Amino acid sequence: MPSNQQIVLKSRPEGEPSVDNFELTTSDTPALKDGDVLVKHHFLSLDPYMRGRMNAGKSYAQPQPLDEVMIGGTVGVVEASMHPKFQVGDTVVGMGGWQTYSVVNGNTPGMLRKVSTELIPLSAYLGPVGMPGVTAWVGLHHICEPKAGETVVVSAASGAVGTAVGQLAKARGCRVVGIAGGQDKCDFLVNEAGFDAYVDYKAHTDPKSLYRALKEVTPDGVDCYFESVGGPILDAVLLRTNAFARIAVCGMIAGYNGEPLPMQNPSLILVNRIKIQGFIVSEHMELWPPALQELGTMVASGKLKYRETVADGLAAAPEAFLGLLKGKNFGKQLVKINS
Amino acid sequence: MPSNQQIVLKSRPEGEPSVDNFELTTSDTPALKDGDVLVKHHFLSLDPYMRGRMNAGKSYAQPQPLDEVMIGGTVGVVEASMHPKFQVGDTVVGMGGWQTYSVVNGNTPGMLRKVSTELIPLSAYLGPVGMPGVTAWVGLHHICEPKAGETVVVSAASGAVGTAVGQLAKARGCRVVGIAGGQDKCDFLVNEAGFDAYVDYKAHTDPKSLYRALKEVTPDGVDCYFESVGGPILDAVLLRTNAFARIAVCGMIAGYNGEPLPMQNPSLILVNRIKIQGFIVSEHMELWPPALQELGTMVASGKLKYRETVADGLAAAPEAFLGLLKGKNFGKQLVKINS
Repeated sequence: MPSNQQIVLKSRPEGEPSVDNFELTTSDTPALKDGDVLVKHHFLSLDPYMRGRMNAGKSYAQPQPLDEVMIGGTVGVVEASMHPKFQVGDTVVGMGGWQTYSVVNGNTPGMLRKVSTELIPLSAYLGPVGMPGVTAWVGLHHICEPKAGETVVVSAASGAVGTAVGQLAKARGCRVVGIAGGQDKCDFLVNEAGFDAYVDYKAHTDPKSLYRALKEVTPDGVDCYFESVGGPILDAVLLRTNAFARIAVCGMIAGYNGEPLPMQNPSLILVNRIKIQGFIVSEHMELWPPALQELGTMVASGKLKYRETVADGLAAAPEAFLGLLKGKNFGKQLVKINS
Repeated sequence: MPSNQQIVLKSRPEGEPSVDNFELTTSDTPALKDGDVLVKHHFLSLDPYMRGRMNAGKSYAQPQPLDEVMIGGTVGVVEASMHPKFQVGDTVVGMGGWQTYSVVNGNTPGMLRKVSTELIPLSAYLGPVGMPGVTAWVGLHHICEPKAGETVVVSAASGAVGTAVGQLAKARGCRVVGIAGGQDKCDFLVNEAGFDAYVDYKAHTDPKSLYRALKEVTPDGVDCYFESVGGPILDAVLLRTNAFARIAVCGMIAGYNGEPLPMQNPSLILVNRIKIQGFIVSEHMELWPPALQELGTMVASGKLKYRETVADGLAAAPEAFLGLLKGKNFGKQLVKINS
């Protein structure tokens, strides 16, 4: 069996995480038992939810155990199989973790899925046709339910989730405004992804300036907001909400390191009869098939644009992950493995 | 035509309102035109929503115009009628305003409704079998959707809305915890209204003490919260929410005078996948008939207990209203008129 590089969580961060929280180790991949599949990873997905798992405290999921391989989505190729459904050479998506190989029991529900790379690049199954894309779809359809002509605002708009949110909303006839940090990301939104307008939050460091910029691009107010950030951006959007606005809360990355992140004016929830709802995509498994069908079709036909930032080699994963938390990535953050 | 006493809004409050914002005037009631009904008011309803109307700024409703009669719900008796559906002596509920008489066109939808006082006291049509009761019903059914065995928390629990929320939830098999200010109100909740437990917020002036008191009476966490207060009470309840908790926001009286009222930890919305939704009962007219049917049956059969605080005479309305905003009332705040 091949030698396997792994990154484990060595210690829990106090406040901002650092590369010292991770450790690269090497081990042999275990021998396959009946039903097992050996997958050689091509790409590892880095996602903001991983930050929450690094903490010991109760959140919506169990904490990442110390000294165990960091969890994470992976795509790769079957290298050996003792399961009749998986053949050597199959391209698969799974939750292989931060390592170069994984051994997975093919019978475990949801752990390994064969995918076709005929029309869709393998890496896209970690982005627009994977968990981030489905997250966009679920928040938009299940919570925001946008109607044609309404204004939809998306934060972290050039990220893997936000890019999909905006283009799904455009496909439904909405006016779409993206909030992103930096001119290059904002240019991508309007020039490539078809967004109607943007707000560059890095150009508006005080709340009033941010509000004025948002007001300018939302002349009819905000009907739907897809939230991944929290803090001052959420406050600004709340001030622009129309009656009966819907806010899907997918993340609040601004507060992931434990800093306080109050909502300044919750009375707007009443004044504008807003619905705010948090959700986690893994709790809506019944929505994955219709979501993946629409997302796959859009990507295969070139109608859903997306960006990727690819770090090179497993050892680069911790640094890339820390950059993701600071918005240094552009689009989906991946790590190329076994290149 | 009889002489009519009226209270008009004389000026808008800056911060906390005072009696000087109101003025008592006298005028003749206008002559009846075809379709008009003259109603002699017996009770005027005082409600927290009126505070919002006193401000000039945009809220969910138009501001109360200056120098015009304050809006408000009323019950009374028809004294003269030029409308075939209304006869002299009919008991009616309507939006007669802060005055001793009103002249209403009987054809205006929703303005005047005949009610029976055979099994239900006239004043109850301003409380449990009126707008406050329907508010409780709509927030509970439309937003909270509590299931038997779940824990429902209600703030302003001894008020007109809160009392109904708790008893409707008890009728659905929930564990019900009321938050109220003062031992007499809390005693009423558990000894008369059938609540399972209470938190006296006046006995817990710091957030940690409030949280501990709430934790003690919500050993299984909080599944539903009916919110009329905001501020530290909302923060404490959020910390006790279970996964998939639902929060109906009916009011945030703590912030009605314009003081900042941040929500300390909105990331809990994501962590616990909470739904928070604001609503206004007048925007759910389709729910009034089923709500009034259940509430009327419960009051007529003595299954819904409620308290009233009755101020004597129209001139006492401003003082009583200011007391309501500070929680000085016990149960539904009414003004007895034409006594």
